Amino acid sequence: MKNILVLHGPNLNMLGIREPGVYGNTGLPAINEKLQKLADKLSFTLDIFQSNHEGELIDRIHGAFGVKDGILINPGAFTHYSYAIRDALSAVSLPIVEVHLSNIHKRESFRHVSVTAPVVIGQIAGFGPYSYELGLLALHEHLQSPA
Amino acid sequence: MKNILVLHGPNLNMLGIREPGVYGNTGLPAINEKLQKLADKLSFTLDIFQSNHEGELIDRIHGAFGVKDGILINPGAFTHYSYAIRDALSAVSLPIVEVHLSNIHKRESFRHVSVTAPVVIGQIAGFGPYSYELGLLALHEHLQSPA
Amino acid sequence: MKNILVLHGPNLNMLGIREPGVYGNTGLPAINEKLQKLADKLSFTLDIFQSNHEGELIDRIHGAFGVKDGILINPGAFTHYSYAIRDALSAVSLPIVEVHLSNIHKRESFRHVSVTAPVVIGQIAGFGPYSYELGLLALHEHLQSPA
Amino acid sequence: MKNILVLHGPNLNMLGIREPGVYGNTGLPAINEKLQKLADKLSFTLDIFQSNHEGELIDRIHGAFGVKDGILINPGAFTHYSYAIRDALSAVSLPIVEVHLSNIHKRESFRHVSVTAPVVIGQIAGFGPYSYELGLLALHEHLQSPA
Amino acid sequence: MKNILVLHGPNLNMLGIREPGVYGNTGLPAINEKLQKLADKLSFTLDIFQSNHEGELIDRIHGAFGVKDGILINPGAFTHYSYAIRDALSAVSLPIVEVHLSNIHKRESFRHVSVTAPVVIGQIAGFGPYSYELGLLALHEHLQSPA
Amino acid sequence: MKNILVLHGPNLNMLGIREPGVYGNTGLPAINEKLQKLADKLSFTLDIFQSNHEGELIDRIHGAFGVKDGILINPGAFTHYSYAIRDALSAVSLPIVEVHLSNIHKRESFRHVSVTAPVVIGQIAGFGPYSYELGLLALHEHLQSPA
Amino acid sequence: MKNILVLHGPNLNMLGIREPGVYGNTGLPAINEKLQKLADKLSFTLDIFQSNHEGELIDRIHGAFGVKDGILINPGAFTHYSYAIRDALSAVSLPIVEVHLSNIHKRESFRHVSVTAPVVIGQIAGFGPYSYELGLLALHEHLQSPA
Amino acid sequence: MKNILVLHGPNLNMLGIREPGVYGNTGLPAINEKLQKLADKLSFTLDIFQSNHEGELIDRIHGAFGVKDGILINPGAFTHYSYAIRDALSAVSLPIVEVHLSNIHKRESFRHVSVTAPVVIGQIAGFGPYSYELGLLALHEHLQSPA
Amino acid sequence: MKNILVLHGPNLNMLGIREPGVYGNTGLPAINEKLQKLADKLSFTLDIFQSNHEGELIDRIHGAFGVKDGILINPGAFTHYSYAIRDALSAVSLPIVEVHLSNIHKRESFRHVSVTAPVVIGQIAGFGPYSYELGLLALHEHLQSPA
Amino acid sequence: MKNILVLHGPNLNMLGIREPGVYGNTGLPAINEKLQKLADKLSFTLDIFQSNHEGELIDRIHGAFGVKDGILINPGAFTHYSYAIRDALSAVSLPIVEVHLSNIHKRESFRHVSVTAPVVIGQIAGFGPYSYELGLLALHEHLQSPA
Amino acid sequence: MKNILVLHGPNLNMLGIREPGVYGNTGLPAINEKLQKLADKLSFTLDIFQSNHEGELIDRIHGAFGVKDGILINPGAFTHYSYAIRDALSAVSLPIVEVHLSNIHKRESFRHVSVTAPVVIGQIAGFGPYSYELGLLALHEHLQSPA
Amino acid sequence: MKNILVLHGPNLNMLGIREPGVYGNTGLPAINEKLQKLADKLSFTLDIFQSNHEGELIDRIHGAFGVKDGILINPGAFTHYSYAIRDALSAVSLPIVEVHLSNIHKRESFRHVSVTAPVVIGQIAGFGPYSYELGLLALHEHLQSPA
Repeated sequence: MKNILVLHGPNLNMLGIREPGVYGNTGLPAINEKLQKLADKLSFTLDIFQSNHEGELIDRIHGAFGVKDGILINPGAFTHYSYAIRDALSAVSLPIVEVHLSNIHKRESFRHVSVTAPVVIGQIAGFGPYSYELGLLALHEHLQSPA
Repeated sequence: MKNILVLHGPNLNMLGIREPGVYGNTGLPAINEKLQKLADKLSFTLDIFQSNHEGELIDRIHGAFGVKDGILINPGAFTHYSYAIRDALSAVSLPIVEVHLSNIHKRESFRHVSVTAPVVIGQIAGFGPYSYELGLLALHEHLQSPA
Repeated sequence: MKNILVLHGPNLNMLGIREPGVYGNTGLPAINEKLQKLADKLSFTLDIFQSNHEGELIDRIHGAFGVKDGILINPGAFTHYSYAIRDALSAVSLPIVEVHLSNIHKRESFRHVSVTAPVVIGQIAGFGPYSYELGLLALHEHLQSPA
Repeated sequence: MKNILVLHGPNLNMLGIREPGVYGNTGLPAINEKLQKLADKLSFTLDIFQSNHEGELIDRIHGAFGVKDGILINPGAFTHYSYAIRDALSAVSLPIVEVHLSNIHKRESFRHVSVTAPVVIGQIAGFGPYSYELGLLALHEHLQSPA
Repeated sequence: MKNILVLHGPNLNMLGIREPGVYGNTGLPAINEKLQKLADKLSFTLDIFQSNHEGELIDRIHGAFGVKDGILINPGAFTHYSYAIRDALSAVSLPIVEVHLSNIHKRESFRHVSVTAPVVIGQIAGFGPYSYELGLLALHEHLQSPA
Repeated sequence: MKNILVLHGPNLNMLGIREPGVYGNTGLPAINEKLQKLADKLSFTLDIFQSNHEGELIDRIHGAFGVKDGILINPGAFTHYSYAIRDALSAVSLPIVEVHLSNIHKRESFRHVSVTAPVVIGQIAGFGPYSYELGLLALHEHLQSPA
Repeated sequence: MKNILVLHGPNLNMLGIREPGVYGNTGLPAINEKLQKLADKLSFTLDIFQSNHEGELIDRIHGAFGVKDGILINPGAFTHYSYAIRDALSAVSLPIVEVHLSNIHKRESFRHVSVTAPVVIGQIAGFGPYSYELGLLALHEHLQSPA
Repeated sequence: MKNILVLHGPNLNMLGIREPGVYGNTGLPAINEKLQKLADKLSFTLDIFQSNHEGELIDRIHGAFGVKDGILINPGAFTHYSYAIRDALSAVSLPIVEVHLSNIHKRESFRHVSVTAPVVIGQIAGFGPYSYELGLLALHEHLQSPA
Repeated sequence: MKNILVLHGPNLNMLGIREPGVYGNTGLPAINEKLQKLADKLSFTLDIFQSNHEGELIDRIHGAFGVKDGILINPGAFTHYSYAIRDALSAVSLPIVEVHLSNIHKRESFRHVSVTAPVVIGQIAGFGPYSYELGLLALHEHLQSPA
Repeated sequence: MKNILVLHGPNLNMLGIREPGVYGNTGLPAINEKLQKLADKLSFTLDIFQSNHEGELIDRIHGAFGVKDGILINPGAFTHYSYAIRDALSAVSLPIVEVHLSNIHKRESFRHVSVTAPVVIGQIAGFGPYSYELGLLALHEHLQSPA
Repeated sequence: MKNILVLHGPNLNMLGIREPGVYGNTGLPAINEKLQKLADKLSFTLDIFQSNHEGELIDRIHGAFGVKDGILINPGAFTHYSYAIRDALSAVSLPIVEVHLSNIHKRESFRHVSVTAPVVIGQIAGFGPYSYELGLLALHEHLQSPA
Repeated sequence: MKNILVLHGPNLNMLGIREPGVYGNTGLPAINEKLQKLADKLSFTLDIFQSNHEGELIDRIHGAFGVKDGILINPGAFTHYSYAIRDALSAVSLPIVEVHLSNIHKRESFRHVSVTAPVVIGQIAGFGPYSYELGLLALHEHLQSPA
């Protein structure tokens, strides 16, 4: 059984409240629940964590080293400037998938750039809460395929 | 039963041959076969087309208007400059998902920009041939969910 | 009697369907009909052609060399990147007028730039289908005036 | 009968004198005369004004509010930096057409940018004095068409 | 005897008052007096004018056409954005020398750019009030030398 | 009793008419009236002036030298390009406060830049007509505090 | 009675110590005291919080949701890069005013940009500790005025 | 005997007609004839193809895979934007030489950039039709030298 | 005896694990040990602290005010964007030396820029763990030399 | 009697030969002769030196330290990139005037920038050989005026 | 018999030693020998010179004026910044060909720009030592062809 | 015993004279003397050379090939533009350390960029003459450590 760390970045605890026109009505608990169901099907155990603190996210990423089999992360606004999270993701040498609820290419220009994307396997953006599920499937496929 | 147009852009016919270090060893027929299997599960019919000609891709996109239920497209290198394909995608008012085999954010900087991404639902990049399957799942989810 | 080549670029066949908020409800046949009426008044014969293929437009421009008296062109999205069409227009040494349905200066920033404008007599943008009629009048004035 | 304000920006009083290689030999009185003839045909009355003073042009634009039916303006060099004229044009909520004698896209790069274009209906450039006549026709068409 | 138009742009009436650390203590009357003395030696008559109004400067430049033999101008802050004054200087086809009190290359970066410099004979900057005298000498030399 | 010069830049005479969605419904007389009331409380006399002419504003700023105790200015669109007004403000060595009705950071990108802000005490933007009152309070506080 | 959250960003605890040439001699307690006095007059209760931790500021902003009536924030250096705080401010849908002690437009160029300004009502910068009082007045005015 | 694919991009069929000031008077048949003569000397067979269609050029490049020993290409205007041709050239893993008739570094700035140059052996520009012959010699040398 | 604060920024706790190709095999404890030995020779006491939390680093920097004699800092990825740490370093008015393990000028372009470097004495980069020792020597030299 | 070092940069030995359309027909000896005559009138002794070697120019500038009273320099193409000459000029703490034969603002854009201008008193450009004489006059005026 | 000056710029004396992965194993003497053989066939005499000194290269270029029939130059790193060499090449009015061993478009971005290319006939890059031979052939062709 | 080449770039011979506010009062002989003392301790022999000539520095760097064990270089102003020195440093394949007296990140923006830094081991900047000593220590450490 594979262990996956799921990280939600800043402001994602406000989901369902914040700018529903952009992010939809689903709250974080509902997303986590659906993700857990999919994890059960895929024989994954999930360790889910949300924080508005860049340092806490980094600590958790470090904690995954040698312990987890992969990371699913929505870095929220840190996507656009946190080179510290980028370095953390790069340090742990794990398969990582980056997801975004909204299509970041449709929004303000500063959101088009991801400083974390160059150190992950791939990026999925624009499918609302379902982006997370697609990300978990992508991790699953990656972990199954021969190196 | 939903009808999906699957479009492969320029040079994707060379898959499995071209730069395997970047794109992997799987050829286009193998990708299409796996996609067809997934389509069967999702009760989708697929109309698959590859072209190196920008104009042919545009004609096909137009042909989908009022006939297809969605488009799954890997615009290949056209991603980075074809405003004509962008306008075509925008014209047909269908749900569209953009996929890429490689993580375009890890490669040459001209590949970081997608001129088509702002007119699609979302973008999936970096998972090799599995990017297509994730894209089809994303379309499926989108077509099922209430507007 | 003067012969004018009228060229409609990519996606203009979708006119009346595509983004009516931006381009209006008039389809291409209606535009061509009005243009033909004006041509009759001005003693012009028109050769009208639409294509989504950059290469076909170039072939037609070449075909006008030594045969037509002027070109009226709406290059559509090719306006913004087709240096090949620019070179073709420049090669045939004919009076050329560039027209746009919408005011391209009011839209996305990539549409503010025209790579073809530097090789034509002038540009008319923002008057909907009437832009074409103004363009034909401009060509007429140009062909009448002494060099 | 419709009333149109015709505004000539800075240096246009020097027309016929200044850089005839670029702007041609026709002076401003000749342009105004031709414009007046066309106005008679279109049942327009014209109020024509030239100034080298940005503030006087703004005052005239304000004076058109609720009094005129449209504005035909060649902002001259103010095209490229007068955000004050832009705001004035935007403030009066009238149909406005911007014209230029020369094809500004063929000249120095600072002339490619128009800060006024985004607040007018459309722009016509490159047809010499005939640009004004096309502009008046465009205004006429606009005022006739149903909203 | 040659006639020279001397133009002082905006804020130069404040000379001797404004930022003496940058511009020195000499007021405009003192500069004009020294300039007049030099003009007497060179057999020049001077017509000196200061304005804070862009339009008035343009009107004066136009008024020099066919009447004056040269222009000596310190465009002040208009140096950095007034394409209208640039066009006026270019229109009158006279020898023109541009002067600045301070070394504009030592100050804020926006002052490094002169939009008027490309249409004058030459530019002299950094010698305080003596820049004007050098400018007059330069005009004198230019008017004496065979074309 | 302190004397304050209040300057309204171009198009502010159109307030209450122009783009009410952005600037609100209050006209300039109403703003001036409220400002006068506050001035009475603060024992200020106000000299209020509006102009669409850059040169007139500069003349007024110069006129304040040695006569007024401070300037409250909304430079309107001149904010974004008038280095001449900037130099005038800098020349008179008075405490100056810059105000804007709208939050200029929320609007078109050219409005984010203020060429006048670096030579004033501070800038207040976004509070509608109340921006002026806050600006007067700021001047009052400044004039009271020991150097 | 209205409740206002007052947030001081990083390094503001060092006020009165740090770069007095730029920020003045007043410490944070003195500012808070003056702010409290003004709040009493305006019938506001204040909840004041300073942190050098981006995450703690975000948590506090979230905590204001549905509980506070407005936010007064000096984001300190986070102003220039914290898209996470920007998203938090935008999420809570409260009236927010941004204040700065110094005139950020007079300092290093990186300080001219505020990534938070586009999501607040308005910005006040340059009046030292009095910027906070002006900000509170602005919030008061905003909360009083009819929507 | 080695087989070389020679590709002429858009508008090269107009050679001898188009802008002789820039490209000279020699037409494409004359160039091909000289190239054929040189090929005979070098024991090369040539397959020569011109197209104005990006897609046709890509198809031909693909067709060279495993069949030809090298490619000599003048991509014409596609040089400056066709990432699709770049990818095609890169896909076929053949020695490729890029040639240009004119010195692209002397012309408009958009022509200074070649998006194809990074995937070829080398580039030759500025020697008119003789650029092609130099390119063939370069390919010959390359194919002879030990890897 | 002098007291020095040694700060290790984010991800430096992963040293010896993370990207050994870039950062080498030595872990943080080994670095600290060597640093301690050198400190003993130089009669320095060290207070060593690592954190992945920007706020904690700022708090520690503040805590050094009036207590420590100097700071040796490797800000890690915060080097490239933390204006908050820059302000903290600037606030405490202590001699500070910035060190980097790798030669940041050889790596991704975002690493070439240091936002903290302008507020420290000097920067040392590229010598692996020995960069720290050089930094301590530099601080020692600085504290010995007369002001 | 004052001693002035006159420096001619690279390619100025080719004057009268090189691009007469830009630089005129006068050779360097003729310029030096005229300069010598003016120097006699001004009671200056001149030490004139031309070199195409950056290092030789720097050595000469150093040699002027404590020996010469001023420098007149035309840095030729070094104007646009030699930070080493800039540093040399700055090191010797002498009054320096920079001159150019042509109006550098009318030519290629790389010539608009002078890296040496910020460290000299002033710059004179565009008056052909007479630029040197104006420069000598400017040095004379500077050396006469009280500090 | 034609005389050709062959110039090798800085570091080319290190050929065969320096970065063989980029420049190959052939040293400069071997290149010169092959070039001499080709020159014999073409009835050219060669004057070959290498220098690491920009000034020496300029002196040699000047020395070719009126003496040589053409120049073959590999400016090495001077290609990217020596406007002085550019001016020298432009001054002597000779046919010049620029060559590079490596494909400069495949390397660091600063190597993509050639400041000398705009003043030569053409540029050849990427064919190792054979680039020189191609360059000599190009010069030969140029000198044979009628003007 | 190891041999080290010490190179001082342009203007460093003026040390102690030039801008003492920036570079301090110590002259080059004093620096060399201290460096020699440290070299004695480290069992290094030093070969010290200063030049204002780029070419001489390159010749010396080449001369170190196969003869010296390392290079310590302060490239002075060449740091910011001499790609020729960069290539020379890269050619000799020796351990190289780059040092600067001043903190280049605190000065004019053109000094923030080092074109030589990407080809050396590391860079030390800001510690005055002691930067050289730190650089020698860094070379010593490097030469001792196992590859």
